[in-house]
Amino acid sequence: MAYPQNMISGTAKTGELALIEQIRARAAQSIRGRIHRGIGDDCALLRIGPREELAVTTDLSIDGRHFRLDWHSPESIGHRTLARGLSDLAAMGARPVAAFLSLGLPGALVSPHPGKYVPHQKKNWVERFLDGFFSLAGEFKTPLAGGDLAESPIALADIVLTGAVQRGKALLRSGARPGDLLYVTGSLGGAAAALAALAHDAESPSKTRPARYGSTRSSSPQRHPGLPPQFAPHLFPWPRIAQGAWLARHGAATAAIDVSDGLSTDLTHLCAESHVAAEIDAAALPIYPAATLEQALHGGEDYELLFTAPANARVPRRIAGIAVTPVGRIVRPRKGRPAIVLLTPRGAQPLEARGWEHFS
Amino acid sequence: MAYPQNMISGTAKTGELALIEQIRARAAQSIRGRIHRGIGDDCALLRIGPREELAVTTDLSIDGRHFRLDWHSPESIGHRTLARGLSDLAAMGARPVAAFLSLGLPGALVSPHPGKYVPHQKKNWVERFLDGFFSLAGEFKTPLAGGDLAESPIALADIVLTGAVQRGKALLRSGARPGDLLYVTGSLGGAAAALAALAHDAESPSKTRPARYGSTRSSSPQRHPGLPPQFAPHLFPWPRIAQGAWLARHGAATAAIDVSDGLSTDLTHLCAESHVAAEIDAAALPIYPAATLEQALHGGEDYELLFTAPANARVPRRIAGIAVTPVGRIVRPRKGRPAIVLLTPRGAQPLEARGWEHFS
Repeated sequence: MAYPQNMISGTAKTGELALIEQIRARAAQSIRGRIHRGIGDDCALLRIGPREELAVTTDLSIDGRHFRLDWHSPESIGHRTLARGLSDLAAMGARPVAAFLSLGLPGALVSPHPGKYVPHQKKNWVERFLDGFFSLAGEFKTPLAGGDLAESPIALADIVLTGAVQRGKALLRSGARPGDLLYVTGSLGGAAAALAALAHDAESPSKTRPARYGSTRSSSPQRHPGLPPQFAPHLFPWPRIAQGAWLARHGAATAAIDVSDGLSTDLTHLCAESHVAAEIDAAALPIYPAATLEQALHGGEDYELLFTAPANARVPRRIAGIAVTPVGRIVRPRKGRPAIVLLTPRGAQPLEARGWEHFS
Repeated sequence: MAYPQNMISGTAKTGELALIEQIRARAAQSIRGRIHRGIGDDCALLRIGPREELAVTTDLSIDGRHFRLDWHSPESIGHRTLARGLSDLAAMGARPVAAFLSLGLPGALVSPHPGKYVPHQKKNWVERFLDGFFSLAGEFKTPLAGGDLAESPIALADIVLTGAVQRGKALLRSGARPGDLLYVTGSLGGAAAALAALAHDAESPSKTRPARYGSTRSSSPQRHPGLPPQFAPHLFPWPRIAQGAWLARHGAATAAIDVSDGLSTDLTHLCAESHVAAEIDAAALPIYPAATLEQALHGGEDYELLFTAPANARVPRRIAGIAVTPVGRIVRPRKGRPAIVLLTPRGAQPLEARGWEHFS
């Protein structure tokens, strides 16, 4: 869900952020009783039953923007489409209830005779897309309950996820307090490193095209023995549903967001919604082996959870098998000081939000 | 929601219908307790609270397929985007709870300096789109709770509507029984007639371009005194929320669907889901004044409600100010007989589903 990106204080409001602010302001006039959280978090929260809230998120993926038909296998695109939505649920601590999928596809991708995008394959593009989609849906017990289908000059997929979370237990972006510690699940920068490798491969025609990666039917990274491991975080990201649900159930986190646009950008969102600032210890960051510090700070699509917890809270080192690493702390915001500071052996430096932004 | 389009018995399964069947079959394997209705109706129904169900629908609109930037004003496109989703709620008898909007837009439409699409206007395209969207949202008290935003080579909007309906009271497509009478709200064919007029205007460069229609800020037809009335059903359709809610509350209808793809196609869907056949009286059809019988039978986007009720049920002639007209009856299906028959003064003839289908 990209709307929630809020004003980044101290930067000019242009492009996507300006438009989101405009939409948010107009939407705010119409918010009523049922909506506990509207625009401004990973999911909206609808008050439905007496004990539960329904988290709803929507994520649009477009060829050339969020994936490339000539780089990504159909299975990877199907997997990533669903993973984006599941990751938003994870960031709220919600369990999946149902998914809805709107597909806009060029006729060639739907043709019963596989076309140029899938040579030497018996299945056509959309069948392989659905393989990737339903394989991940099965892993996270997420039924597909509906959607829409249209012919389109470009390939696109809009995913809607609904999830359930115990009333009052949802992880919000807005609860971080000065003194809280900052944690991240898994590792960062792997997706950006894999994307860079894909781009490099695509520019080297002597090599086999990367579309061969991820051509098996299952979308679980563990089941891709032929997949070069450095590509897994980008091609088949694994949403942190179990970790988010654990944090919500134990009331362990004060705020959370998923790292979809890059650590610098998503931490900026969290700080803006919580009205706080943050410090990151560069040496503490769990950087993916093949990635650079730059990729870990600004690369998007890692789909890890970034969350805060009081300094005296007991946060385990692993949750459901995934490492949890303290990477910094929340501090009081001060006028004229950058919202986020990176602490390195050479001193402190401001960390600007340099993740992905549309219309910039 | 286009997925629900089910197998049309007796016709070859090609293109969109074949793909929807494939998705429906795979989705059915994953359906679990929370989902009361999945793919196969105007909305999915999620069992959330003890007394209510949540209706969810998603509708994708793409430039060149569902609207044309050079024919439709931005206000009309914003209005129609939301109206499509509201109409699906109306067909279930649900009341709007919240909307979610995913927008993919070329940079020029978001530019603070209006570009080629909106000459002589102070507002840019997306601002006028939002005018049309929020004006209709206000009329139907539908808050915008979230969404996504992306730069895209073509303009597209995916709308998600959630609505509430009393448990067990939702209007389904599957409840029609032989002997039931068939009713339609409002009139049919107006949208197709308006679209034909728009296309004719676009091919006549001597006339003013139709984009001038609907350029005022409000999207209510009543507030468009300058709008040629024959265009209103197409540019600013009015979802039948009040009529659907009335039918659900009174338990008056056995089945319902909205006429989005055309009477012939949507009645075919209703008959397929109910395992029945139908007869339509051509002379009884409430044809829009400027429209032909052909347009009333096969033209899409009227967004009226088509519903069935037992012959002895008391169905009023008007519901919430909109005419309700009996147009035919439900009959037992017979092998070798067409699913839908049109009764005319010259005798009975089979009525094929000739409404809109993607990938056909």
